[in-house]
Amino acid sequence: MSEMELPPSLGVCGNEKIAKEILSKIWGKRGVFTCTVANTLTSTIPGISDAGDTPELTMFTPAADAELLVLGRTVCMKGIPINPGGIPTPATLTKAAIELSGMPMFIVDGGCRVRPNIPCIELGGECGNYVTSGKAVSNVRGVFEKGKVLGEMLSRGFDFIVVSESCAGGTTTALAVLLAMGVVKENLVSSSSPNNPREFKTKIVMEGLKAAGIEIGDLADDPLRAIECVGDPMMPANVGMIIGAAKHVPVIVGGGTQMAAVIAAAVKLDRSIIGNVFQGTTRWLMEDPQSNMEKMMESISRDVPIVYVNMDYSASPYEGLQAYEWGYIKEGVGCGGSSVAAVIQSSGEVKCDDLLEKVHEIYRKIMSFD
Amino acid sequence: MSEMELPPSLGVCGNEKIAKEILSKIWGKRGVFTCTVANTLTSTIPGISDAGDTPELTMFTPAADAELLVLGRTVCMKGIPINPGGIPTPATLTKAAIELSGMPMFIVDGGCRVRPNIPCIELGGECGNYVTSGKAVSNVRGVFEKGKVLGEMLSRGFDFIVVSESCAGGTTTALAVLLAMGVVKENLVSSSSPNNPREFKTKIVMEGLKAAGIEIGDLADDPLRAIECVGDPMMPANVGMIIGAAKHVPVIVGGGTQMAAVIAAAVKLDRSIIGNVFQGTTRWLMEDPQSNMEKMMESISRDVPIVYVNMDYSASPYEGLQAYEWGYIKEGVGCGGSSVAAVIQSSGEVKCDDLLEKVHEIYRKIMSFD
Repeated sequence: MSEMELPPSLGVCGNEKIAKEILSKIWGKRGVFTCTVANTLTSTIPGISDAGDTPELTMFTPAADAELLVLGRTVCMKGIPINPGGIPTPATLTKAAIELSGMPMFIVDGGCRVRPNIPCIELGGECGNYVTSGKAVSNVRGVFEKGKVLGEMLSRGFDFIVVSESCAGGTTTALAVLLAMGVVKENLVSSSSPNNPREFKTKIVMEGLKAAGIEIGDLADDPLRAIECVGDPMMPANVGMIIGAAKHVPVIVGGGTQMAAVIAAAVKLDRSIIGNVFQGTTRWLMEDPQSNMEKMMESISRDVPIVYVNMDYSASPYEGLQAYEWGYIKEGVGCGGSSVAAVIQSSGEVKCDDLLEKVHEIYRKIMSFD
Repeated sequence: MSEMELPPSLGVCGNEKIAKEILSKIWGKRGVFTCTVANTLTSTIPGISDAGDTPELTMFTPAADAELLVLGRTVCMKGIPINPGGIPTPATLTKAAIELSGMPMFIVDGGCRVRPNIPCIELGGECGNYVTSGKAVSNVRGVFEKGKVLGEMLSRGFDFIVVSESCAGGTTTALAVLLAMGVVKENLVSSSSPNNPREFKTKIVMEGLKAAGIEIGDLADDPLRAIECVGDPMMPANVGMIIGAAKHVPVIVGGGTQMAAVIAAAVKLDRSIIGNVFQGTTRWLMEDPQSNMEKMMESISRDVPIVYVNMDYSASPYEGLQAYEWGYIKEGVGCGGSSVAAVIQSSGEVKCDDLLEKVHEIYRKIMSFD
């Protein structure tokens, strides 16, 4: 197509020209979905993460999300991951997008304490330590290098690649890495709760920076060191995969503020990926009054655009899904990126209404409403 | 195509009708290559395995093969795996086939003591014990189930799947499983040496059966138990993958007698895969006077045909490669299956001459003749 026209299912923010160039390159082509799961003990600090019914259960959320995507049910825990109040994991939308598109998927183990009971691609990572330790992630360079190899391997088989994450506590470690790199100077990150505990998160993050002996912006040129000090094990895997893949095929970085930290690190390590990468996310995240994705992405690079899916749960008969409209969840498990990919791979045939219908089907099945 | 005509690069043995039906279904389509690497302590028994310069080095061969395929060089050891006498690993041919076809590849870790330094798909297996212990493989059911899931996952993304192996000592464990299942009553298995130490292998295998308290044919109906007693960790992974994938897409089982044991187990566990599976191997194996693949496959099922690639190294300027014509190596690391797949995926455009030229290029590069 000459001038790409966006379907109503998608919106663009940031450099529209680059976004449309990438979209026309992969429109109707074959993608692969990947989700990197990881644990950080940071999520068990009470008050930090709502990605789980209790602080302890946040450790089970990544594995359960992955099992849900691959098996359609969870094995490592009973029921599906929920936020306090019973709001279901965004993996419900991810699963809908994958089923409608027919995209194959792979789960990458960035470093888990609780491992999913499914085949995972291992990169040699381990569960992350508390961000407050200042020594948050081990074997960063090794996992990053293997991630690069994996990105290259996947680019042999597919026309584009979706990279995403499920890592509870990840917005806190993202904030820490973004501050360590000086990409942001203040807390712009999101949360899976509308009552984003910003001050508490900032306090925890500042403790981590202090323990690592670094000030805001000190590690502007050493993103892997920033991850090592105050990041989480999802990061080196995904930074590597993005760099390895984007040399060959376009990469959709699926996720919210957690993936902003990953993009910041990847762009710093290899600027040549710009023009072959966009962030894929949801309308919910873009409209979040508690965070500012646009501003954050602008300070990373003006040339990594955002493509978001215009999902709207306000007409859903299920309160657990309506809650997404009230500021809960908003992103995670690549729900935005996979939805954007489903629209792309189907040349726009898959629409938000189709996704919504499929989410309802999956939600009913999981909740045994049927 | 109505009646499939085979290109001169390929030969068929066994049920030609089924072979041609499968071939016409996947001719020119997109495949994926997988290789399952595993260790069994059995390979370190002096005299059992020639897949390595010394008995100790046989433990490094699977990991080194996988690194060679993915990275183009080895990390876990110096140089590439060789048989005593310097005959290079068949991974050289596998790599040629993968490069010429553009097929993506994944390495599956069936259970390794020495792990490859690359991204691997983990199924929860561990290094195998001596076959003489009668307790050769742990977690067989778990790995088998995850293998099934992996086979299904791969079938979402590709039109056909190549399943293969690198597991030194594997012809001995294959013989043991085939005897335990009663598929063969005598030693028909191959070896990577033309001086196939048949009597010694049979003695070792009979020790294993005795330690497990089983007679020939006792486990005809329980292949997973046969693997647990006297198999190796490559087997449950590949049996699962074949069953999981062949429900959806054709599967090429790449390998020699080692994979005959895997096919026997898979067919016993799920007969419905027949008609969607063939063995992909080399002319060298088919012509091996020391073994009898045709006879062995007939006793497994008359309806799992063999498709072999007519590679011929007799005109090669390199003695290490000529040795393949003298009965060395013959198969392994899916070299036959990947070559057959390269012919299929290219609709016959890739010919044995192209493969030979590419093998020479790779061999020169590895040996730094260039």
